[in-house]
Parts: sequence; structure tokens; C-alpha cells
Amino acid sequence: MYYLDNAATTYPKPQSVLDKVYDAMKNYGANPGRSGHKLALKANREVYDARVMLSKFFNIKDPFNLIFTPNCTTSLNIAINGTLHEGDHVITTSMEHNSVLRPIKHLESIGVENTIVFADEEGFVSKDDILKSIKPNTKMIAITHVSNLTGTIMPIEEIGKISKEKGILFLVDASQSAGIYPIDVERMNIDFLAFPGHKGLLGPQGTGGLFIRDSLLTDTIIQGGTGSDSYSIFQPEIMPDKFESGTLNMPGIVGLKEGLNYILERGIEDIQKKEEELTEYFIMELSKIDGVKIYGPSDLKKRAGVIPINILDLDSSELAYILDEKYDICVRPGLHCAPLAHKTINTFEQGAVRFSIGPFNTFEDIEYSIKSIYEIRRQI
Amino acid sequence: MYYLDNAATTYPKPQSVLDKVYDAMKNYGANPGRSGHKLALKANREVYDARVMLSKFFNIKDPFNLIFTPNCTTSLNIAINGTLHEGDHVITTSMEHNSVLRPIKHLESIGVENTIVFADEEGFVSKDDILKSIKPNTKMIAITHVSNLTGTIMPIEEIGKISKEKGILFLVDASQSAGIYPIDVERMNIDFLAFPGHKGLLGPQGTGGLFIRDSLLTDTIIQGGTGSDSYSIFQPEIMPDKFESGTLNMPGIVGLKEGLNYILERGIEDIQKKEEELTEYFIMELSKIDGVKIYGPSDLKKRAGVIPINILDLDSSELAYILDEKYDICVRPGLHCAPLAHKTINTFEQGAVRFSIGPFNTFEDIEYSIKSIYEIRRQI
Repeated sequence: MYYLDNAATTYPKPQSVLDKVYDAMKNYGANPGRSGHKLALKANREVYDARVMLSKFFNIKDPFNLIFTPNCTTSLNIAINGTLHEGDHVITTSMEHNSVLRPIKHLESIGVENTIVFADEEGFVSKDDILKSIKPNTKMIAITHVSNLTGTIMPIEEIGKISKEKGILFLVDASQSAGIYPIDVERMNIDFLAFPGHKGLLGPQGTGGLFIRDSLLTDTIIQGGTGSDSYSIFQPEIMPDKFESGTLNMPGIVGLKEGLNYILERGIEDIQKKEEELTEYFIMELSKIDGVKIYGPSDLKKRAGVIPINILDLDSSELAYILDEKYDICVRPGLHCAPLAHKTINTFEQGAVRFSIGPFNTFEDIEYSIKSIYEIRRQI
Repeated sequence: MYYLDNAATTYPKPQSVLDKVYDAMKNYGANPGRSGHKLALKANREVYDARVMLSKFFNIKDPFNLIFTPNCTTSLNIAINGTLHEGDHVITTSMEHNSVLRPIKHLESIGVENTIVFADEEGFVSKDDILKSIKPNTKMIAITHVSNLTGTIMPIEEIGKISKEKGILFLVDASQSAGIYPIDVERMNIDFLAFPGHKGLLGPQGTGGLFIRDSLLTDTIIQGGTGSDSYSIFQPEIMPDKFESGTLNMPGIVGLKEGLNYILERGIEDIQKKEEELTEYFIMELSKIDGVKIYGPSDLKKRAGVIPINILDLDSSELAYILDEKYDICVRPGLHCAPLAHKTINTFEQGAVRFSIGPFNTFEDIEYSIKSIYEIRRQI
């Protein structure tokens, strides 16, 4: 089994992540932040520690400004649906995942305007195009850090500067970057950082988070019990409770903490370097095969380990099927929940087969993938 | 360790639940419903099987009308915030958890009216009071099946009849009943059934579900990637995708399925009977101790295994602290995220110590708890 679908979810997870999740369920599976007995306090302490560790990792000064969510989509929705109101304008890009585009398009029905800045064919968004799109009522710029289709690394630090200068909220979707590329919410002027727990951060599915710089600017999209202000039938403003109604996925968060532990022990630089090396080798070798189309940045320094390809006009689903059936290679075909990105790189009809590299992929995985693609190409 | 906080989350879980969660993470931890390779298909199949099993359990005819959520609070929010609009009226009760009350109070700001029907001192809501509260613009009746404070079992079948006759949507919060008491959405005329996965259903934290009878009446509160209609930047209407944006907690759902498996093998009648017997014995013995106040229904046939008590005027937090520290008994004190329920039973100031029984509690747990309470009472 050659797993190259790490942009969907990383697999495998470090063994220690699995062990910690199991341990949490087995030995202190109580409800964090509700009761005050030993098990509940232990569960609560673990969640708190995860909050502190992740905050440090992203340079978030107050850990209570980091909330846990079930996935990055929910994080993005809280930032987008909780902030934009009738009459507001939001700028986003053609490279976004539907987790950004669909909430923004949904908000059109209540009178929130949007501008979608189109990227060039390699997936790059020009900061000048973003600047030109700013209007007096622009409230937010929402952009992905790394494209989930092309791996294009966006100039978020430059866009963060623009946001700060213009007093516009800056939302970064770190779905494909958190845990692989360093992120500093202060240096990058990020107001909302949305991230999944189960991708680069190596936690289990069912986890995610959101940094919220100013919770008073943000409304809740979900209200309920928080274990705090229990005398009140109104949602509390206290952080992080305001955005964490309902029982948290405690074992999942414990696993996420352990995923981060793994990254810190190995070093994020090592993970980034390894994934960049494999990506570079993969692209260099693939580009030698006639008829293989590789999308995304030609400058390999500006792309992450997400590599969409096609072979001639072969349907992407068929190619992925052959890779799975005959070669035991796990990849994702079709449209990658990013329709405008496919329009940007001209693969809206054909789709693309996405190879995405994770921290546990090896040189052998890549070598084998190249050989398999070569063989398939020869047989067409 | 005597765990009697099962209304917060059941603990322990069946060993098989832990094993299945671990197995899912370890052996097929891919993203369900996204890619099409073997691992993703296996993950997807497991989620589908869980959907089918839960649907059968609640007599939901079309499994695609059952959606997975991260917790019951999210389920309730989808039903409440997704259905009620300006000018609508909703009827609820004083016995509700804040996961029902807070969304409803939040909706006041957009012009959704509400009537909160007060229960009697035992926590019972009169169906006549509900009938009397119906107005021409009443769109929904939202009520808990079993109170999380008093264990009062509500007459949901009768209220379901009223809802059907009057053409009003009927939302049932099954937080304290799913997996312990039989629920039939057809016979009970339930339009929305919200349930947690990690309480009576014995799944891990981070799981929950919602049955939606008519998804066209319900708006999404979260939009994003669904792995379907990926060519579109608008949220699809197809079920269950419409309400399942973002990566699902696949290992959690696998665990939830196994929790249900355990219940089906043991028999829900056996679990209900066991919990009722322990509850009855606990209350009978406690009521012999002078100075111990027990709240909730005096008719033991009309209450579930959720037993709030106080000793004289002792602060509930202090009592819970002693139980934890000296006796190793895990319970929850204070206000149980249900402020109006505390007003209903006159414990808003003192709070209450809640003992809540789970399927793994034993006669010895209860006997020991009674002796401990007796000892504490003698020392005051």
C-alpha cells in the first residue's frame, strides 16, 4: 500500500498518537470542563495543555483565543459566517477550497458581497490584484496558505501586511500547511487562522482549530452548554467557551496534542525539507515522461507536496482507479472540492489525479509511483 | 473509582468500542467520501454501515436523512438555527439544557419568538400547557426526552401527536435517552431527533447525529466541501452531504457503531431495566436518610437514572468535592447547564449533586454511594 493522499488526511499517524487516543478513552474518558472530579479534571487538563502547545506553535499569545472545532471547515465557517454581515464585502481567490467558497457564496443571500481574485495558471494570486479589489466596505480577505489542488504557496505574509495597513480582517486557511510550514499569527498579521487537526498536524479525524484575534468581532454560529455561566440562558462571551458549546472531542484533542509533539520532536524543518525533496524528485522525474501533465508552480521552491497530474486526456478517475487497483497507490482524482481552482489551471473537465506527500512517505514510495505512471503511460 | 457521571459522558465504554476506534485509525484511517481508493472506500463503508444501523435503531426509513455531527449541541443548532426565521414562534420548556435554550434565546435577536413552558416541581411538562402556547406562527416544539437534571421522562409521544395534528415541527433532544430508551421517529412523529454519540450510545466523544425528516425545510449553518457536486461553489441539497461539510470523525463514528452493536447484543431492555433497578434502589435507600433531598419525579416509573440530590443546605460543590476526594465517587455538582430547570425545582442557588447511572454501574457502586452519603450526612 502506497498512501499518497495526505492532503485529504495524513496516514499513517504516528503510533504514539494512536496510543494516546486509546489511553484517553480507556483511562480518563470523562467530559472535560464540566464536572470537577478527578477524571474530568484530568481530561480538562489535557485539553488545556493541547491549547497551550498549539498556541505556542502558532505564536498565539493568549491560548484562550484558540478554539477547538471538529474540522477546519467548521473553523472557516465560524470566521466567515460569524464576521460578515449585510453590506460587507469579502475578497477571496479562485484557489480556495469549497470550505471557503461555499460559505462566502451562501452569504450572498443576506447581502454580503464578494470578489474572487483569479490566480494565474500556476495558482499564484497577485497581491496587486488583491489591493485593487479592496473597496470601502471590504471587511475580510480570506485566502488559503497552500492550495489543496496545486500546492501553490501563497504570499500570505505580504497579504497580511496589506490587511493590517487597510484595517481589514485577514483569514488564512492553513488546511494544507499547518504542521508542515511555520506559521506565526503575529508576524503574518493573521486575524483568523483555521486549521485541521488531522492533516499536517497528525492528529486524528474529528479535530481542528481556529485562532480568533478578536472574539468580540465574531458571532457564534452555534450556541449551547459551555460548562460556564450555567446560570444564564444566553451564550457567554468568555473565551474559549463562547465558541466551544457542546462536548469536545477530548480523545481526539489528546491525539492532536501528541501529533504536535511528534512534529516538535522531529522538527518541522525536517518534515518540510523531506516533503520538498520528495516533491522535487517526483516532479523532476515525471516531467521526463512524455504525455504527463503536471500542474502548479514550475518554481519548485514555491510549491508544497501536493502534485496534480494527468496523462494525456485519460479521465482522472480512470487513472486513479488503475493506480489503486493495479499498483496499490492511494491518490485522489476528480475535482478536489475546489472548482474555480480547476478552472484556473484548466482541468475543470478532466479533473486531476492528486498525489499528496506526507511526513511518512519515503523515497521508495515516490520511485514506485514514478515507475507506475511510466508504465501506465506506455500502455496507452 | 466509582463513576456516576454518565449523563455527562458514559464511562467506561465497552472494550470493543476502544478497539474499533484504534483499528480504524491504525488500519484504514483515510478520509471517507472523498477519494476512491481502497482505504477511503473502507472508511466510507464503515460510516455508511453506522448510518444504516442507527437509522434502523431509531426507525428512520431513509438512512440518508440521518446526518453525523460532532455532538448533540451541533445537532440541536442545525435543527433550531436552520429552521426558525424572523416571525416564527417556537415552544420549548423550562427543563431544557442550554443547548436548546441558548440557540432559541439567540434567535430572539433576529425576531424569532419563543414561549418557555414551565414544568411542575418534579420536572413534568403538561401537554395542555403546550397546547395553550400554540400560536398561528408556531413553527416548532422543542423538548428534551429525559431531563438532564431530574431524569424526568417527558410525554414525547403525546406531544408528537399534537405537533402532527397542528402541522408543527417536532424536535426531540435525546441526549439522555438515546441508547437507553427505545425511540421510534415514526411512531413518535419526530421531525428532528438530536442525539449524542458518546452518552447512552456508548461511542467516543466527538460524535453525534441528527435525523432530519425534511431537509428542504432546513438551512445549513455550515457550508463547505462535501466530496459531492465538487464542480459547484454552492452547497449541494443532496442528503446527507448538505449537512456534512468537512471531514467526518470517521474513527469516532466507527466507535459509535460498535457502541450500538454492544447495545443491540446486550438488549436495550436489559440496559433500561438495569438502570431503572439501580435508580429505584438508590432513591429508596437515600430517602431513608434524614436531611437528604432528592429531586425529580416521585413516581419512579417516570424517571431515568439521573438523580440530583442535596444534603441539607450544604453547597453542592462542597458535597461533590468530598465525594470525589474522600470516597472516589465521580459526580457533577452545581448548575447542570439547565438554569431554568434549577429554577423549576428550586435549586438555582444551591445547585445539586447529580448522580447519573450508566450501563456498567453495579449494585455495589450504588450501595457504596448510599453508605458514603449516609456517612457525610452524619458528620454535618
